[in-house]
Amino acid sequence: MERTLTFQEIILKLQEYWSNKGCLIWQPYNQQVGAGTMNPATYLRVLGPEPWNVAYVEPSVRPDDGRYGENPNRLNQHYQFQVILKPDPGNPQELYLESLMALGINPREHDIRFVEDNWESPALGAWGLGWEVWLDGQEITQFTYFQQAGGFVLDPVSVEITYGLERIAMALQRVRHFRDIQWSPSRTYGDVNLQGEYEHSKYSFEVANVERLWQLYNLYEAEANAALDQGLVLPAHDYVLKCSHTFNVLDTRGAVGVTERQALFGRMRDLARRIAVAYVEQRERLGFPWLKEEGTPQTESASPEVQGMVNQPDLFLLEIGTEELPAADLQSALEQLREKVPALLDELRLSHGEVKVMGTPRRLAVLVENLSPAQPDRTTVVKGPPAARAFDAQGQPTKAAEGFARSRGLDVSALKVQEIDGGQYVVAEVFEKGRSAVDVLSEALPDLIASLRFDKAMRWNASQVAFSRPIRWLAALLGNTVIPFEYAGLRADRVTRGLRFYQPETFTLNTSAEYQNVLRSQGILLDPAERRASIAEQVQRLMTQAGGVPKLDESLLDEVTQLVEAPTAVLGTFDPAHLKLPAEVLISVMKKHQRYFPVYASTGELLPYFITVRNGDNQYLDVVADGNAQVIGARFADASFFIQEDLKHTLEERLPRLGTLTFQYKLGSMLDKSRRVEALVDKLAPFFGLSQSDLATARRAAYLLKADLVTHMVIEMTSLQGIMGRYYAEHSGEPKGVADAIFEHYLPRFAGDSLPETLPGILLSVADRLDTLSGLFAAGLAPSGTKDPFAQRRAALGLVQVLIGRQIPFDLRQGLALAAQGLPIEASEESQNACLEFIYGRLRTHLMDDYGFRYDVVDAVMAEQAHNPFGAYRAAQALTAWVQRADWNTILPAYARCVRITRDQKEQFAVQPERFVEVEEQALYAALLQAEAAPRQPGSVDDFFAAFLPMIPVINRFFDTVLVMAEDAGVRANRLGLLQRIAALTRGVADFSKLEGF
Amino acid sequence: MERTLTFQEIILKLQEYWSNKGCLIWQPYNQQVGAGTMNPATYLRVLGPEPWNVAYVEPSVRPDDGRYGENPNRLNQHYQFQVILKPDPGNPQELYLESLMALGINPREHDIRFVEDNWESPALGAWGLGWEVWLDGQEITQFTYFQQAGGFVLDPVSVEITYGLERIAMALQRVRHFRDIQWSPSRTYGDVNLQGEYEHSKYSFEVANVERLWQLYNLYEAEANAALDQGLVLPAHDYVLKCSHTFNVLDTRGAVGVTERQALFGRMRDLARRIAVAYVEQRERLGFPWLKEEGTPQTESASPEVQGMVNQPDLFLLEIGTEELPAADLQSALEQLREKVPALLDELRLSHGEVKVMGTPRRLAVLVENLSPAQPDRTTVVKGPPAARAFDAQGQPTKAAEGFARSRGLDVSALKVQEIDGGQYVVAEVFEKGRSAVDVLSEALPDLIASLRFDKAMRWNASQVAFSRPIRWLAALLGNTVIPFEYAGLRADRVTRGLRFYQPETFTLNTSAEYQNVLRSQGILLDPAERRASIAEQVQRLMTQAGGVPKLDESLLDEVTQLVEAPTAVLGTFDPAHLKLPAEVLISVMKKHQRYFPVYASTGELLPYFITVRNGDNQYLDVVADGNAQVIGARFADASFFIQEDLKHTLEERLPRLGTLTFQYKLGSMLDKSRRVEALVDKLAPFFGLSQSDLATARRAAYLLKADLVTHMVIEMTSLQGIMGRYYAEHSGEPKGVADAIFEHYLPRFAGDSLPETLPGILLSVADRLDTLSGLFAAGLAPSGTKDPFAQRRAALGLVQVLIGRQIPFDLRQGLALAAQGLPIEASEESQNACLEFIYGRLRTHLMDDYGFRYDVVDAVMAEQAHNPFGAYRAAQALTAWVQRADWNTILPAYARCVRITRDQKEQFAVQPERFVEVEEQALYAALLQAEAAPRQPGSVDDFFAAFLPMIPVINRFFDTVLVMAEDAGVRANRLGLLQRIAALTRGVADFSKLEGF
Repeated sequence: MERTLTFQEIILKLQEYWSNKGCLIWQPYNQQVGAGTMNPATYLRVLGPEPWNVAYVEPSVRPDDGRYGENPNRLNQHYQFQVILKPDPGNPQELYLESLMALGINPREHDIRFVEDNWESPALGAWGLGWEVWLDGQEITQFTYFQQAGGFVLDPVSVEITYGLERIAMALQRVRHFRDIQWSPSRTYGDVNLQGEYEHSKYSFEVANVERLWQLYNLYEAEANAALDQGLVLPAHDYVLKCSHTFNVLDTRGAVGVTERQALFGRMRDLARRIAVAYVEQRERLGFPWLKEEGTPQTESASPEVQGMVNQPDLFLLEIGTEELPAADLQSALEQLREKVPALLDELRLSHGEVKVMGTPRRLAVLVENLSPAQPDRTTVVKGPPAARAFDAQGQPTKAAEGFARSRGLDVSALKVQEIDGGQYVVAEVFEKGRSAVDVLSEALPDLIASLRFDKAMRWNASQVAFSRPIRWLAALLGNTVIPFEYAGLRADRVTRGLRFYQPETFTLNTSAEYQNVLRSQGILLDPAERRASIAEQVQRLMTQAGGVPKLDESLLDEVTQLVEAPTAVLGTFDPAHLKLPAEVLISVMKKHQRYFPVYASTGELLPYFITVRNGDNQYLDVVADGNAQVIGARFADASFFIQEDLKHTLEERLPRLGTLTFQYKLGSMLDKSRRVEALVDKLAPFFGLSQSDLATARRAAYLLKADLVTHMVIEMTSLQGIMGRYYAEHSGEPKGVADAIFEHYLPRFAGDSLPETLPGILLSVADRLDTLSGLFAAGLAPSGTKDPFAQRRAALGLVQVLIGRQIPFDLRQGLALAAQGLPIEASEESQNACLEFIYGRLRTHLMDDYGFRYDVVDAVMAEQAHNPFGAYRAAQALTAWVQRADWNTILPAYARCVRITRDQKEQFAVQPERFVEVEEQALYAALLQAEAAPRQPGSVDDFFAAFLPMIPVINRFFDTVLVMAEDAGVRANRLGLLQRIAALTRGVADFSKLEGF
Repeated sequence: MERTLTFQEIILKLQEYWSNKGCLIWQPYNQQVGAGTMNPATYLRVLGPEPWNVAYVEPSVRPDDGRYGENPNRLNQHYQFQVILKPDPGNPQELYLESLMALGINPREHDIRFVEDNWESPALGAWGLGWEVWLDGQEITQFTYFQQAGGFVLDPVSVEITYGLERIAMALQRVRHFRDIQWSPSRTYGDVNLQGEYEHSKYSFEVANVERLWQLYNLYEAEANAALDQGLVLPAHDYVLKCSHTFNVLDTRGAVGVTERQALFGRMRDLARRIAVAYVEQRERLGFPWLKEEGTPQTESASPEVQGMVNQPDLFLLEIGTEELPAADLQSALEQLREKVPALLDELRLSHGEVKVMGTPRRLAVLVENLSPAQPDRTTVVKGPPAARAFDAQGQPTKAAEGFARSRGLDVSALKVQEIDGGQYVVAEVFEKGRSAVDVLSEALPDLIASLRFDKAMRWNASQVAFSRPIRWLAALLGNTVIPFEYAGLRADRVTRGLRFYQPETFTLNTSAEYQNVLRSQGILLDPAERRASIAEQVQRLMTQAGGVPKLDESLLDEVTQLVEAPTAVLGTFDPAHLKLPAEVLISVMKKHQRYFPVYASTGELLPYFITVRNGDNQYLDVVADGNAQVIGARFADASFFIQEDLKHTLEERLPRLGTLTFQYKLGSMLDKSRRVEALVDKLAPFFGLSQSDLATARRAAYLLKADLVTHMVIEMTSLQGIMGRYYAEHSGEPKGVADAIFEHYLPRFAGDSLPETLPGILLSVADRLDTLSGLFAAGLAPSGTKDPFAQRRAALGLVQVLIGRQIPFDLRQGLALAAQGLPIEASEESQNACLEFIYGRLRTHLMDDYGFRYDVVDAVMAEQAHNPFGAYRAAQALTAWVQRADWNTILPAYARCVRITRDQKEQFAVQPERFVEVEEQALYAALLQAEAAPRQPGSVDDFFAAFLPMIPVINRFFDTVLVMAEDAGVRANRLGLLQRIAALTRGVADFSKLEGF
């Protein structure tokens, strides 16, 4: 085994490696940049059509990542090694992996993964799709296909590979802290850079003068514009970089409010855009000189294979080999194929057996059993001209008939006459020979692949095909025969690829039947269900082994299933000292950042273990576990740093900063919002029955409600909002009730989440949501279609969940009106009604989907009680019991009879007892008076029926004997009035006319 | 032969090379820096005692070097490769040269030279001594031993090696323009950087907003101070770098006046100093951790050689082997040794034959023929106590005598009594055995070397020895015997080194007699006189060969003689198109920058050739010539650029800028000065007899007098002042007379230079110098000792040279008084007199040294005519003729008799003719009256003598017969009065009492 490389040798090796691969070796930029991307060698050169291959080191400064040198791998300045390949060479991942091997990394000894990571720089008007590359859980590289930069759609697309050199060195040298990286034989990284980390961190977090930095920012911007006005691209770019860095320091100093941030991003983006335009124009004026030297590489044109003959039904295989698909895209592609493939085969008239659609991150596979070798033959009847025009008086075929026959390839004598839709027409019977499956699939498969849709698709090569990630190979076999087609610059063949880093790298399939076996031979589980089961089994085994309970997070399990081809679970440990951090923080970090399964003791407490699932076999698991342990250790240390920083201030001290965090520009800051909620607390308190003590708690909690949003920990992980609020409140000396209420007001955060427990928490939960919804609707920001940037659906749903779950009768109309009073803008009646309707929609869904009430029951109760979710719920529950009663079909009709005959009446008739004619109507009137007098809880279904049931025989008798629509208008009106009074008994309870069987 | 390296491969090779030599490989800095020196990896790490070896690329931005991409090798941004070796490894030059070989440069095929170049950065409080390294005349590297940084004296000293990568690449790839350097196999330097050169040049020269940049400067400075106040060294340093770059851009924009420049330098230096202090304190607090790891390397201790015996006189050799000495230091060291060695040998009582002191840039050699193998024995008499105290009454020796005898190692019986200075003393006769020459020289030679003094000396290793440049070996032999001693960490031995790059590298000398032969075997001419003759012969031969005249610049020849060990002259050519530039520019560039000999046609015009003198043999002269031709081509192109830029404005348009160029702070700007000269023109004109037309010319020339000082060409090469002024005046449409006067006012610029020809030129030459001298003296800035920063000696000398050379009688007293009237400060009488005396001193020297007048003659005429240099000169000339006359010994005594008897009289006596007693005195009175009535030109010596000669016999008779000091007081007074009148005849002519023989 080679000696481990020093940090400087890693750089030298990479320079040498990429130089040998045809890259120009460039130098770090002489400006403080946040990433190698900002070096003009990337930022400008990816623009325009010219080829460009470059590699360079970039010391990258990110002030807010400064940790005073204390965090193992988070630094104010880290070293990137940046590679740009333009255009895509076709195998950039392989080139990259080969470079890791050149550094002495044996991939078989590690878990190397491409983990979805999309990149977007609003300030640069740029985005791209790609991955983080993980080495044993550690992000060591960013790999991105640039789609857009400076507002330009890029053509060709550039591949950007950004190595994190410290991470790689730590892994290679097996050290735990950047300080200990051996930079040269005699000096460590800490020797030469630790002091700088400390000083720059201190400068950016504590010392930088905010006022001066704002002045610098403005001067830079002015100078950038001045340079641009003279067409000076590079000087302008330099100043934009200075703007960007200055902005970052200001941000780290906590001096940038959200509104300012957006405005500045906009200004930087405009500048970046102008620079990009100017650069492209410059190159265009020069005639894009580099374009001439190098021809665009042609798609390799493999010699077309001689086709075997397919004579009998056989297994069809289509494999779309890709670079690592994001989990959601894999899921979505599989679902689309499951729907589209059978439909396609039907359309193609190819009979078949079972259709299996399976896949892993690197392949989408369609397997169709017993696919017919050919379409069946068929004869179709084609309608021609009317018989009268087809034959002349002599019965001889006319030119029209001849023409028709010729167009169908028939002799005119073969035409027949047939009656169609009552007319006589000439028809042709056309025989169609079934085409071979190979032929029709050759034509159809490109369209099938092209029909797949993704949330975000990307282009990568000259074919301009868009897909979730680049397609790198295509296998298509019917039995032993290749279905020839081309797509995305590739030619379908009989070759598949194995698991990364395993030998052989490719398999040539003699027949489609071999496919699953060759994959399995390298441990690849093609079937997601099988993978999921395998992972679950392995993870649970390790949980038990670690002394924990086998408790799995199902959504995490789903995700992990989509991330690996050949799953092997690995148990790792972390320093138990980290357990003093809030458990939610640890869990969030493990799940969200690393996709690790946490391990819980039977008491529910966390154990100092994690389980990760590697892609590969069970060799060198100790190395993999160790690498992952380092990563999680650093992440926990980072969380610890944030929390320590945050604890330097009380929550209350955060409030001024909250004033700079915009909620929505018409509605003010988050501080404004919490002030409104605070005011709303007093107005709503009476409806929630709060004690004076609870009220005080609620007021104080409202005062501090959103303060945690400006803490480092929550800025880092938004999902910890409320959790950190509670934690920091406790550590700020707030009463426990206040801390809990702050936490609870966010509840429920997701489907299945718990509800607030305490009355202050419940009240705040409702008040906050009422403010959010009334405000946003007033501001004209109702959600539409799939757009719901403020998560109003969740807010509305949470609102009704809390009211129902905590059994609180509450009139939403009143609540919204009170909330609207506090808004800084006017809430029109129209907007308030729209808001109500929006909430009703959530309530309806909730009642049906989450409680399983019948839609008609829900409609019935909502017609009368939608404004009071708990009432609606209670009514739906009771009504459900009634509609399930055996005698329901005697109950509903009795009421229905009263309603049906009256509901078209525009007029409300008064009952005049003296005008009753028949005894039955007098009896009904008496029963009505009794029912009306019965004691009823508002909205109670049961109370209604208790009052109504005695009336049923009286109603039935009435209709049997009395003619309601009497000739005498007065008599008729009197009888209608009586029935109207009966119909009205359900007011405030439900509208039974919505029920089935009414 | 290997394939030529690309630019990126050159960098990779250097990184690899220095990494293998134990250097840490560092990265370019993320600030715009002017040089790798400013990277903290140099600027900070050279401070303090800790070792540090580092190498890195540094893209270095020098805005004022921007040439829009047009100059072949002058760039806004060039790439340095920076190496720091701390402490000195003992062989840094060799390590460096080996790196060139690693790049594929075969030194035998080129002329590689270490050319004196000292480095100073006022803004960084730093300086060092070293060289430019020339490759075929091209500066490819700066090689410096840092002596001081941030105001700290450095210990240890760091070696800084700064490669100019473009220059090296151009030489390696044999391309003529940086654009054409192959950066990577597929891209040129121009491909990737040409546009940037254009844009950054345009930005810095034309676009940068001066007001905004000043604001930036001030903000940076404030932020640097704020960071420093918190002890943040690196953030502060970053801001100082930003200050520095911003300053450079402002300077390039022409926005920095001289006063501002000094003030800003002072502020930056203070900051740099504070940063340095803070850094060293920081390291000290850490206990200088790197010091512990690596022990200071000990001086290698070679096994002491067994000494041979020296029995007879033999050749003594001392060779001090050095890194390349500056020409002046070599010259000075040789002179010092020529004086000190014989004195030392005398002191050491070593008899010897001829002493030869010779040397080259790499060695100082002392050769002493027939040096005695030992001192002679000697007996000395030592005086003891008085005899009376040494012996008691009995004649027995006392304790005093015994003590004295013992102290001299004698028995008391050996003492003798001797009379000394008239007293009786005990004496001891002490015999001293002569010591061997080897022993006494061993002791004396270190002191000899240590006694050599240089204008600027440097330290390099732990010995703390200071010398002109590092001493790297010592050879000391008496015949075949080494004289053992240690100095500067070296042990003297019998080994010398040959010519660089030639084999063998070292020679072991059996005897001192071999020394000169082994050097000569590699072409080294040890004797400067021999080298000078060889160079002169070769250069003149090539001049003739090129069709020119063999005209040599002697001072250049002197300098070149001190720059090479083995001279070979090389003829090169340049593009004749450059001949359209002013010849003075071409000549200056060739001589000053490159030490080339220009070649003149017999017409006096330049030919498109140059002659350089390489160090080495006559192989590959074509390569050397070609390389040098490239260099001079680029330099001429640069001059052309400056002139083109300058020609965009008229001289008159330059004047406002001249207002920012300080002459002296009390005396205002250069513009103020030229305004004063302009005013003085009118006042002085009457004395110079100017016509109205000449006066107009002089006024206009005065108006534009100094405008060329702010042109690019003169800023670049100050020696072209006046020359460019004339050139630009002509191109600004000024009359030829004005242009000439501008040029002429600087004349004479150096010894032997021509004088102004035209009256306006003469007048301005005088007026400018009067203003300079009166002003500076008024400001209290008289030169003192060796300090003469304003070159007042030259001004005063020029003043008298012009007045004498152009035969203009002019009263300096009046001139200075008129000049003083225009000064912005008061010129005291005292200061004006001091100024006059200062000028008189120059005049005296001039008359003696340049005209060869006898000192007494000069003193005589100056006593009466110093205020009028031309008069003094004329008088000295005439008087010289008189004092050389055969009958001078009859003339002077006659006059002297009259003077001597009267000169002690305090009183001036009136002559009363009626009181004459004797006829001889009456005759003398008559002769006097006749002489007084004779027509005489003022100050004319001849006229004086014409009047005086007839009086001589009368005078003689008078003294023979008349007793001057008569008893009668009235008679005596009358006679004295008569003689006083005769003595006064020389007034305004000369004071003959100063003459020898008076």
